[in-house]
Formats: sequence, C-alpha cells, structure tokens
Amino acid sequence: MFDKEVYIARRKALLERLAGQKGIALFLGNVEAPAQYKDNCYKWRQDSNWLYFFGIDEPRFAATVDLESGEETLYADDFEIDDIIWMGPMPTVRSLADRCGVAKTAPYDALGAALKGRQVHFLPASRYYNRMKLGALLGLDPAETTSAGKAGCAKASEALVRAVIGLRLVKEPLEIACIDDACALGYEMHTAARRGIRIGRIEQEIVGEMEGISLAKGWGTSFPTILTQHGEIFHCHSHALPVEPGKLMVVDAGVESNEHYASDFTRTYPTTGSFTRMQRDIYQTVYECNELAFNMVRPGVAYRDVHLAAVTHMLDNLKQLGLVNGDVAEMAVDGIAGLFMPHGLGHNMGLDVHDMEDLGENLVGYDDDQTRSPQLGLGSLRMARRLQPGNVITDEPGIYFIPALIEQWKREGTDGGRVNYTRLEQYYDFGGIRLEDDVLVTPDGARRLGPKRLPIAPDEVEAVMQKENQ
Amino acid sequence: MFDKEVYIARRKALLERLAGQKGIALFLGNVEAPAQYKDNCYKWRQDSNWLYFFGIDEPRFAATVDLESGEETLYADDFEIDDIIWMGPMPTVRSLADRCGVAKTAPYDALGAALKGRQVHFLPASRYYNRMKLGALLGLDPAETTSAGKAGCAKASEALVRAVIGLRLVKEPLEIACIDDACALGYEMHTAARRGIRIGRIEQEIVGEMEGISLAKGWGTSFPTILTQHGEIFHCHSHALPVEPGKLMVVDAGVESNEHYASDFTRTYPTTGSFTRMQRDIYQTVYECNELAFNMVRPGVAYRDVHLAAVTHMLDNLKQLGLVNGDVAEMAVDGIAGLFMPHGLGHNMGLDVHDMEDLGENLVGYDDDQTRSPQLGLGSLRMARRLQPGNVITDEPGIYFIPALIEQWKREGTDGGRVNYTRLEQYYDFGGIRLEDDVLVTPDGARRLGPKRLPIAPDEVEAVMQKENQ
Repeated sequence: MFDKEVYIARRKALLERLAGQKGIALFLGNVEAPAQYKDNCYKWRQDSNWLYFFGIDEPRFAATVDLESGEETLYADDFEIDDIIWMGPMPTVRSLADRCGVAKTAPYDALGAALKGRQVHFLPASRYYNRMKLGALLGLDPAETTSAGKAGCAKASEALVRAVIGLRLVKEPLEIACIDDACALGYEMHTAARRGIRIGRIEQEIVGEMEGISLAKGWGTSFPTILTQHGEIFHCHSHALPVEPGKLMVVDAGVESNEHYASDFTRTYPTTGSFTRMQRDIYQTVYECNELAFNMVRPGVAYRDVHLAAVTHMLDNLKQLGLVNGDVAEMAVDGIAGLFMPHGLGHNMGLDVHDMEDLGENLVGYDDDQTRSPQLGLGSLRMARRLQPGNVITDEPGIYFIPALIEQWKREGTDGGRVNYTRLEQYYDFGGIRLEDDVLVTPDGARRLGPKRLPIAPDEVEAVMQKENQ
Repeated sequence: MFDKEVYIARRKALLERLAGQKGIALFLGNVEAPAQYKDNCYKWRQDSNWLYFFGIDEPRFAATVDLESGEETLYADDFEIDDIIWMGPMPTVRSLADRCGVAKTAPYDALGAALKGRQVHFLPASRYYNRMKLGALLGLDPAETTSAGKAGCAKASEALVRAVIGLRLVKEPLEIACIDDACALGYEMHTAARRGIRIGRIEQEIVGEMEGISLAKGWGTSFPTILTQHGEIFHCHSHALPVEPGKLMVVDAGVESNEHYASDFTRTYPTTGSFTRMQRDIYQTVYECNELAFNMVRPGVAYRDVHLAAVTHMLDNLKQLGLVNGDVAEMAVDGIAGLFMPHGLGHNMGLDVHDMEDLGENLVGYDDDQTRSPQLGLGSLRMARRLQPGNVITDEPGIYFIPALIEQWKREGTDGGRVNYTRLEQYYDFGGIRLEDDVLVTPDGARRLGPKRLPIAPDEVEAVMQKENQ
C-alpha cells in the first residue's frame, strides 16, 4: 500500500468529478476465486479499481462513498481465532481503514442495509462472484452488472465509470515509477526468453523459466504468456512444440509487479539467431512501424491517427514487396492493412495490462467525438484518444499471415483486387511478427518505459543472439 | 487426453453404480475465470470431474448421460473465423466427442431444452460461473448448487456424488503412473527449494524458482505454495521475509502435471543447515510420526486409527520433553494433540490435491459408519476411511506452537491441567514442523509415490544441506 494520502486524494478527486450526482458510490473488492474446489483458489488478485481507491490487498472488502455527504465506510469482518490458526495474525479492519484514510467501518453484511433506498452507482463487475453479489444487493440480473462489451456499461453507472476513467487514464508520478519497475522485471523476463530459445527445447520449458522470474520478483505475469512459433495465432497459449530451426518465435509477455502494475513487451526472434531474407523484410517493416509510431507520440495527437500512419507505412512496404497493389492512402482508408494486422496499434496500460478494460473499451479508449471503426484491424484499436501527458500506452504493430483469413478474403473479394494472393501463398507457413514497447506520454513527447529497451533492430537482435549462442 | 476407451469405461462404471436411478446426469465443464477483466483470465483449469469422465481440456463444454437409456450427448459450439484468428485452428466438437467416445453432439445452448421435464442429477459446483449456470438451468439459488460443506451436497445428487467418489477414490494404474510423474516433478521443485534456502534471500525468490519448475515441466503448482518461517501459520502465503538464521522453513508445495494430477510434499528445513537441540527434538518426533503412519498403511486399516496412533506417539514424545503431563492414551482420546497438531494426518490426492473436496468432505473421506469428531485436529481429518488398494493419501503429521491458540487453551482450561504452559512459553517463536509424503495403498501395504523420497531423516537433511552449502 502507498501512504494513505494517496488514496484520500484519489477519492477526493473522484468526488469532485461527481459533484452534483445523487446517491452513493459502491466499490466491491474481490473475493478468492476457486480454481478447483472452494479452498483451492487461484492466486489472490484484488480488483484494480479497488486497489486504486482503497489499496487494501485482502479479500472480501467493500466500501461506499456517499456522493452527497462525502461519508466513507469500509465493510469487512475481523478475523476470529479459527482464521488465525490458518492465516496467522491479521491486521484489524479498523487498522486497514486507517491505512487508506476511511473514517467508518462496518461488517461486510451491513452493506445491504446501507444501500437500501439510495441510488447506487457501481462499476461493471468482471468476476463472477461480484456479478452475483451486485445482482443480489441491487436486485439485478448478474448479466446486467458487467460492462456491455465495447459499447458501454449496462446497468452500471456511466457517471462513475467516466469519473474513474478520467483519473486512471492519467498516471501519477508514483504510478509511473511502479510501471517503470514492472518494465524492469519485464526486461529480465524477456531476456531469459531470448536466451532460452534453443533448437529442440520444448516451448513450455522457456515459459516456465520466464514465469519463474515473474514470480520471484513480482506478483507474476500480467497476462498469460504468449510464446509461440505460430505468431499468426494471437492468443496461442499452447506451449507443447519443440523449437524448430528457421521459425520465428513471438514472445508477448509481461510482469505484474508486487504493487500490481503491469508491463507488456513483445519481441520476435529467429529461432536460429539469424533471419532469412523473407523474415528480415517483414521484420524490418514492423520495426519501422514501431519506430514511426513512437516518434509520433506527443500530447494532442490522436492515437487513432498514429495507428493509421503506422499501417499506411506498412502497406507502402508491403507494396514494395509485391504483396499488395494500388494507392497506399486508399488502401489504408479501405482497411486493407487489417488482413496483415487484424489488431490495433496499442492499448492503455496500468493496474491492468489492458487498463480498465472492464469499464467498457470505448469509454476508456475513445474520445466522445470519436467513433469506433467496423474495419478489421482498426476496429480492434483499444486506444484511439488524443494523447495526454501521463497516458501509458503500448506501441505494438505486427504483421501476420493467417491462411484461414487470407482464404476468406480471397473467397469473398474483400480486398477489391488489391492483394496478390499468388505471392501470399509463399507466406502460409511464415507465422507472424509483433514488436511492442510500453510508452509514457510526456509533456513534450514520449518516453519508452523501463530502464533499458530490449534489443529490437534486426542487426542488434542477430548480434545479441549470436553472442548468447556462443 | 487418454485413449477414448478410458473415458468410455469410466462412464460405463458410473452408469452401473447408478442402475435403477431415474433421470439424467449433468456434467458441466469449466469456463475461463476472469482474473481482472473478462479477457484477462487466470490460467485455464478444467473441472476435475469433467476431466475424469470426458477428458476434453477446453472451456465451455457440458454433457448429459441419460441414466435410463444410457444416451450420451456433448454440448459445445464450434469455432468461427473470428475465433480462429485469435485462437488458431481448433478441433471440431465432433472430433472431440469422438476422442472421448460420446455419440451425440449439440450446441451449448441446447442444454436447457435437454433438461426440461427430466430429473437432473448434478455434482456440486465450485466455480462461481457454474453455480450461476446451474442456478439458471435448474431454477435454483446458486448457493444451493455447491456442496454443503463437510456435511453433504445441498441440492446436488447424493447418488451421483457417491458413485463418482466410489470410482475416483480408487486410482487406476494409468492414474497412479500420472501421480508418480507429478511426484517426480514435485521432487525437483522441492530440491530447488532446499537448495534455494540461503540466509538473506527473500522467500519470494525461492518460491519463484520453485514455481518456475512447476510451469516448465507441468501445468503449474497443485495449490498455492507454502514457504514460510512461520510454519505455525498453516496457510501462510506471504513470502516477503528474508531468510533468517536459526529459523525453520516449512515448504509445503506440489506440482500439477500436464495431465492434471497432483503431488503434495512438505519438508521443514533449518535455515542454516543444522538443527538446534530444541528443533531437532520436535523434528525427530514429527519424523517418527510420519514413519509410524506409513508403516501402518495397508488395506482394511482405517486412516482415522492411523491418525490416532500417530498423535498418540506424538503425545508420548511431548510428555518426555515435559510439554504435557498425564496418561498418554487418555490425552489422545481427549484431543490434547490438537493443540500441537490442529489438522488431520492426511487427505486423498489425485486430480485435486485434496481429491474431490468439492463433492463434500465427509462423503469423500468417511465411511458410512464413521462420524466426524468435533475435536480440534481430529475434526480436521479429511480422510478417515478404511483403506483400499488404489487409494492415494498424504501422510503429513506436524507440530506447531501457535501462541494465540495456546493462550486460548490456557485461558479456557481446555487441556484439563495437562499442558505445561510455562515450558511452552519457550516455544512461542519456534514456528512449526510438518513432514509430508504421498502414499499409495497397495494390495499388501503401501508405497511412497514418486521415484525418490526427499531427504527426511534429521541427519540426512543436515548432511545434504551441508553438502549443498559448500
């Protein structure tokens, strides 16, 4: 936990943003999540909004903030002797309330009565338990308590959601230091991955080494590690294959620090330590897009425009390689890049690796005058907003050759005759390449987070891998 | 997955045990469990009962077995093109049904109609999603769909629960081989822990190394790792302390193999590599209890009697150390050992580390003519049954000095004057010792699982630690 002044200031700022609203704001911390049976749970992870406003990293807490009177109450139960045998001496609820500067405490089950007859503002719930709990407390169908996907917040309070997003989008200096720390650990984890790539090893062995580092130094990984020679499968969590010569290994992984801030880097390595000609051409393009995007980042620039600039450059290069034909600017507008990069350029990052995604993607990532594109690729862009100092975003262009998708476009004529399908067939077993850094928007530009940047230029990657292989 | 004949045979055996029952048996596999937001989930873990009867290690599957006609149906949805971009080409539901020998398939949402008007037998649910799902499918309060704690199965089907327990309690040769494999990995992980104990290191660093091994070679840990210099706190999951000289480090940890079978070992190490006199006396007692219990294990012996024999021996030694006074047999009957060992001697182990705990502790661990004791210690015994060949159990005596508990007994006179509280005060910062092996009941006795036994005799532990410290 940080000093209590941090939490007091955040809640004060929240109240100010909600001035004039009636009723009570309700915050639910998480409870333990059973993995198998009730007492064998997944590793404890507190709710991120709870951590932000209250910091108490223990299960079964709730809080209310009265938007009219400003009164704050923490709801939780003290431990009894049986708990102490199993869990050890625990701080009292009163002492934890003091640590986050909340004046009143009450038993967890007093929450129901406190909400009776009041207008209740709540945030969308992600955990199934909290969906049930909100449903029971507020007489709602649990399905109505989660965010309504990209669009909005179902029965949750849009006013509260917007106020929270407004605060969490701009990271405090304290938070930036935490993210720098998470990136330092991410650097260590990725370095182990790069050194672990040896022909014949099973992917899982490398993942285990990486995740061991995340657990030795931080809370663990900030999301399930992607380490795959099938980079064209975005969320490939199978690690059963042996490392094969001539392949590209996509490593997309991050550490969550003990303070629960995320890092999220991606690198793509030639399994034998040097690129083939075909691999290097595509790699060079992705690398240029990453650099181009970073160089555009500054306050006031819409990240949607950065995405479009990056994919325009990508199309230009792909045209030179003979994979597409036509006017580059037109192809960009028509979304042809989506065939090669069906995801967005980046997302917000903080206490969540896709920061605040449970609050609704569009409310988090889009300014009110921006609408989300239906196109493949741009439509998956999670952060389109005009950048502000203190935003933390990822810069992660990629190029993939996904046979099922290419065949679909060919069948349906989606490209309007601009894709060279014959040439593309040579790439059906290419896989994919993605290169990702974490970027802070500064008052006059941008800074890549973490103490050191992972090797990324193609010559640099080959040089470091050849040295490590000796 | 095993060969389909394995799953066909298990379901056939289940049907035979349920001969004469009306209605339909319903099995729900797990869905993904959000850790933060909906798309950032904990590592995928299938439901153990589902794995046992169907083996399909993918989310969002369900199945019905008609207890009258024997008809079997698998409910799941095939992937669409959008899923394939993110998840890669996936086997069809039909091909997965073939792999576990199920004849019919239907969409996931067809489940509701299939259950209409039928008597539905279901197993207690542990995951919150499945509680909601069962609640919605069957018109029940989600709270009624989980097991009723130690006692029984709430609205779940006791007939189905008993049939499943009867099968899973006796491990097949195939399963025993899997548990031996998990124990081999557990041996590696524990060896890393022992070697990692060095004065000044933070406990978390050792835990990270251990868990890295569990992830490199298996699914991960079979439960959250306990590694603590406060062994008197049973479920101590804080790993923030530096290793200090003169302490005892309790390491209770297991690996879940890629086939999802558990290991569960505990060792207790002197942080400096050699025991103090006081530590060695208590350690020797726990070691003797572990050996005594193992030597009693054979078919027909009630594990409750093994627990009682072990704690009787413990009391005898504690009497010689001057910590208790009185007739040892009487003290055993009166539950005085519970002050020192407030937990049971062991539990079943298999696909779950506390095997089938979600089906109800007493139904799993107690024969119909056995009742659970209310005493501290014996009351926590999870496996009391008469042993059968093929049972896999843990043998894990321990001695702890828990100041809050000792003070409570002293205040309330729980011991009837038989505890030497003055002498006990010298042990208030002792911590605890637990020594645990995994044991298979064989036709003529018992075998410790895994290829090698972790060093356990006090001389052996000191010798190996001194060698490793050089």
